[in-house]
Amino acid sequence: MTRNELFGNILKKRSFLCVGLDSDINKIPPSLHKAEDPVFEFNKGIIDATADFVVACKPNIAFYESRGAGGWITLKKTVDYIKKNYPDIFLIADAKRGDIGNTSKLYARAFFENMDFDGVTVAPYMGEDSVTPFLEYPGKWVILLALTSNRGADDFQYHPGDENSLYKLVLNKSKSWADMENMMYVVGATRAEMLSDIREIVPHHFLLIPGIGAQGGSLDDVVDHGINSSCGLLVNSSRGIIFADNSQEYARAAKVKAHELQKQMEAHLDMRGLL
Amino acid sequence: MTRNELFGNILKKRSFLCVGLDSDINKIPPSLHKAEDPVFEFNKGIIDATADFVVACKPNIAFYESRGAGGWITLKKTVDYIKKNYPDIFLIADAKRGDIGNTSKLYARAFFENMDFDGVTVAPYMGEDSVTPFLEYPGKWVILLALTSNRGADDFQYHPGDENSLYKLVLNKSKSWADMENMMYVVGATRAEMLSDIREIVPHHFLLIPGIGAQGGSLDDVVDHGINSSCGLLVNSSRGIIFADNSQEYARAAKVKAHELQKQMEAHLDMRGLL
Repeated sequence: MTRNELFGNILKKRSFLCVGLDSDINKIPPSLHKAEDPVFEFNKGIIDATADFVVACKPNIAFYESRGAGGWITLKKTVDYIKKNYPDIFLIADAKRGDIGNTSKLYARAFFENMDFDGVTVAPYMGEDSVTPFLEYPGKWVILLALTSNRGADDFQYHPGDENSLYKLVLNKSKSWADMENMMYVVGATRAEMLSDIREIVPHHFLLIPGIGAQGGSLDDVVDHGINSSCGLLVNSSRGIIFADNSQEYARAAKVKAHELQKQMEAHLDMRGLL
Repeated sequence: MTRNELFGNILKKRSFLCVGLDSDINKIPPSLHKAEDPVFEFNKGIIDATADFVVACKPNIAFYESRGAGGWITLKKTVDYIKKNYPDIFLIADAKRGDIGNTSKLYARAFFENMDFDGVTVAPYMGEDSVTPFLEYPGKWVILLALTSNRGADDFQYHPGDENSLYKLVLNKSKSWADMENMMYVVGATRAEMLSDIREIVPHHFLLIPGIGAQGGSLDDVVDHGINSSCGLLVNSSRGIIFADNSQEYARAAKVKAHELQKQMEAHLDMRGLL
């Protein structure tokens, strides 16, 4: 999917919401456990209910991988289902991969050839040749970790007052590996106040923002500091949407939550004159 | 496996060799393609031929994941086969995972519960809470990326002359998250001259050293700068062993290569008075 197509979908749906499929088999409604593939049924229910309100969808690969080969079958079915029924949804493999070049090439194959993801999250620790193999697929995106939402981000990525924080070095260096047509960055919503600094380095890139809801980030703060003239934001909510309700009504509850967020996002887009 | 058991196996086999199962389905001998699971047959051949000379074995997860669910089945069968037949082999999932705590917990489940790996390689970018979930399994190890063997290590991990290079910060901080009984570090053989600096920070820890052979690192240099009183080294060779020959004689060729490396390692252990 191109950057223009993504922006077009944001305008069409009046939303920059990404729904995170952290589909923990131990947390899905008990009523689904009689299905042949309970997590796939759950994912279908969530996607069908929320598709009108989301522009992106982000399966967290650990939740599938932790179930072994069966989890990978569920993941593949989920990807195929979304691509077939909702081709305008930007599909992100939240995998945080990254290895030496010949190995990253195989991770790229896993997510871009064997499955039709539009983007994959990549960890930058190993540098340029661990990232560029993911950039060899036209229309596919690297979503590089910059400043993450968790407490441990303070260990290496960021030190208060340090102008040379690692996350800034990652942004500055990686800008030359790709451009805003195939690179995005992960910035945690819990670090919204730092989005202004980030926008000085990457004013036009899209940012994938996890961490609103369960992790404590605020949508208003993220938009205030991070929005740009092409929106430039994909804001993710996982648990807050998909586990809004644990009964057979889970999909309806997810729809309500996604619609609430879409309405807030529409107001922000409108206020900034983007609609 | 405990640190003492690992050192015991090193003394018993007079070797600190790790064989890397980067078992690319496109590079294994054509004669194996008629098998039901060609990569599993290949791995069995390699392990049966080299087990006397290796103390560790390291499947590179990308080579399995790139084949989807089928690859995960091959991986699980490989792990089960090695654990059943060669319980003294330290089994490493070269996965380079790492995510927020609740997600790392699931990656740990994938490698330590669903499969019986002894250790998993973890990327440090996201800090302490992305690493510690892997440390909750007694007898299981985190093998944390410090200074990698690839060119891109220069982008963020290391800057010549910088006393505060990221890899040193990673070593210093992570020492307090675990101890030398359940934490190792990845240091590329291509950076052997920097092992002396590393040994000042982590004198007693085990180091996993990839990068000899195809990547250009030297065993002699690694030992000169990195060995300690418990050996403290696991030196990996992947392509140099497993793809030494592409014919039906591949396992015999792998055995020859592994034996050559074991002999060199035995000489080093002997010379340092460890045998």
